[in-house]
Amino acid sequence: MGGDHGPQVVIPAAIRALKTHPDVHLILVGDKEVIATLLEEHGAQNEERLSIHHASQQVAMDESPALALRGKKDSSMRVAINLVKDSTAAACVSAGNTGALMATARFVLKTLPGIERPAIISELPTVKGHTYVLDLGANIDSSAEHLVQFAVMGSVLCSLIDGKENPTVGLLNIGEEEIKGNERVKEAARLIAETDLNYQGFVEGDGLYRGEVDVLVCDGFVGNVALKASEGVVHMIRHFLRESFSRNIFTKLAGLIAAPVLKSFRDELDPRAHNGANFIGLQGIVIKSHGGTDEIGFANAIKIAIIEAEHDVPTHISKHLETLLEGQI
Amino acid sequence: MGGDHGPQVVIPAAIRALKTHPDVHLILVGDKEVIATLLEEHGAQNEERLSIHHASQQVAMDESPALALRGKKDSSMRVAINLVKDSTAAACVSAGNTGALMATARFVLKTLPGIERPAIISELPTVKGHTYVLDLGANIDSSAEHLVQFAVMGSVLCSLIDGKENPTVGLLNIGEEEIKGNERVKEAARLIAETDLNYQGFVEGDGLYRGEVDVLVCDGFVGNVALKASEGVVHMIRHFLRESFSRNIFTKLAGLIAAPVLKSFRDELDPRAHNGANFIGLQGIVIKSHGGTDEIGFANAIKIAIIEAEHDVPTHISKHLETLLEGQI
Repeated sequence: MGGDHGPQVVIPAAIRALKTHPDVHLILVGDKEVIATLLEEHGAQNEERLSIHHASQQVAMDESPALALRGKKDSSMRVAINLVKDSTAAACVSAGNTGALMATARFVLKTLPGIERPAIISELPTVKGHTYVLDLGANIDSSAEHLVQFAVMGSVLCSLIDGKENPTVGLLNIGEEEIKGNERVKEAARLIAETDLNYQGFVEGDGLYRGEVDVLVCDGFVGNVALKASEGVVHMIRHFLRESFSRNIFTKLAGLIAAPVLKSFRDELDPRAHNGANFIGLQGIVIKSHGGTDEIGFANAIKIAIIEAEHDVPTHISKHLETLLEGQI
Repeated sequence: MGGDHGPQVVIPAAIRALKTHPDVHLILVGDKEVIATLLEEHGAQNEERLSIHHASQQVAMDESPALALRGKKDSSMRVAINLVKDSTAAACVSAGNTGALMATARFVLKTLPGIERPAIISELPTVKGHTYVLDLGANIDSSAEHLVQFAVMGSVLCSLIDGKENPTVGLLNIGEEEIKGNERVKEAARLIAETDLNYQGFVEGDGLYRGEVDVLVCDGFVGNVALKASEGVVHMIRHFLRESFSRNIFTKLAGLIAAPVLKSFRDELDPRAHNGANFIGLQGIVIKSHGGTDEIGFANAIKIAIIEAEHDVPTHISKHLETLLEGQI
């Protein structure tokens, strides 16, 4: 159990998730004594839908993925992914070291046939609702072919989760005109246009938050920078907003009156509601929660895992890829 | 005179700039009749510090840079840049087609010795004040050496404009640890660490808005996506904030009371105050205003041009590069 807060967040989140999902059974992987103590503290020691699976090691948040993969065969994340591999669990949720989780998931579960690289996908809020964006940081220097695979995976996930029949797909680029952008993105555009995906063309950074497409595809370096920069902007705006309302007695009073409105506004942008990034493209479901999230955020990541398990996302991606490859022969 | 609004914005902005800068003379380049008519409308036909320089052509906002460069030798942007080349003007300000402006500026003015590619630099607001970010979209697939040149240019500009003696410099990356990121960024980190720049290491997307460094260096594709995504977030937040306050009579009342506070908050993030991106690395000063800006925004771009001309930014960059190159021999 990783993340910045470890079992202190994961266990209450698991208890919370059981309440909203009456058919779910959760396996808590980690130090059995720590887990048992915390379950008792939360009065959940007799909860039948929670079981403990011991793991003697833990991957540190700053540990090298390669070292974690080689040296920590009994880490909680490795053991949890093994449970997915042998079908004991339908999905794995972790708030731990992203790089190590990805390396371990890829090593243990392997990628789906036709997928060379798994990607990180998450839904980001937009003016119209939300957009699925991938890759958010699993890959750097993605090739045109990788971007096409990302497009297929994003489209399948969106149609399964949101029930959209033919989700719109865009490629993140620095100009809407065909002449702009780098060669890989332009080549990817040509390749995606040949598939049966509902491809809409290039989308610029601001188009993401205008909700121009259902699925937005990009290289992981670019996607990660865009995501982190966006988080930074939200943080800065909150800082200024808080400062503006705390300047003097009049602004404080105005803030007090506006408080319920500002709260509903904050809820709409609550990152916890959007917590849970999917490692897509693997033969199994792995959800990465934000390392610094709280109980509500982690419970949301569990919810995403449940939804994806119910929809059997990996199998559907495989099927779509097969159809796509058949169409090209 | 380009941009989405052309002379309708540029001329009142020029008149506004004259008021705040009593020593400045502005040359209005474009269709002389259109300009003369507008000057008369604004009662500025006898203003001695405004002169008209006729240009018979105009580059469209969606025109290919290569076609504009070859086919429009008498476009307003080409003529304005020529005036910088022959030292008639100390700087050129345009709200026109970014790609065409960059291609023309590079062709006419040439890059400074030691600079292979000019970059687009702008100051972005942060929690602490502002950070200079480059490249914001002039180059894609920048090499490690290009990133080093960007770092030098950004550092010189920041110390000249803000009077900081040794500005801190960071490289935009997707992880703070040395192991993350792509090869070009890692190589650039090694090279920048060998210079006399005050290099602080890698900065993630959110670190930009925390103001972790004075100057943030990145490839133009990444920088442009980060900038546009940030603009998109600001736009979305405003949308939600407006919506939250207009929901019903009570929220509207709260909004009315909070209005002055919200206005001061908006002013702090006003993109017009940060309007004016510098094409840095050329043998001359070229400032690109946002195409969709208004009179206040364009006047701010003129202000930036004046400040840079007063500080003779290109000469200082050349000097710093010479020192740097000497140090390496």
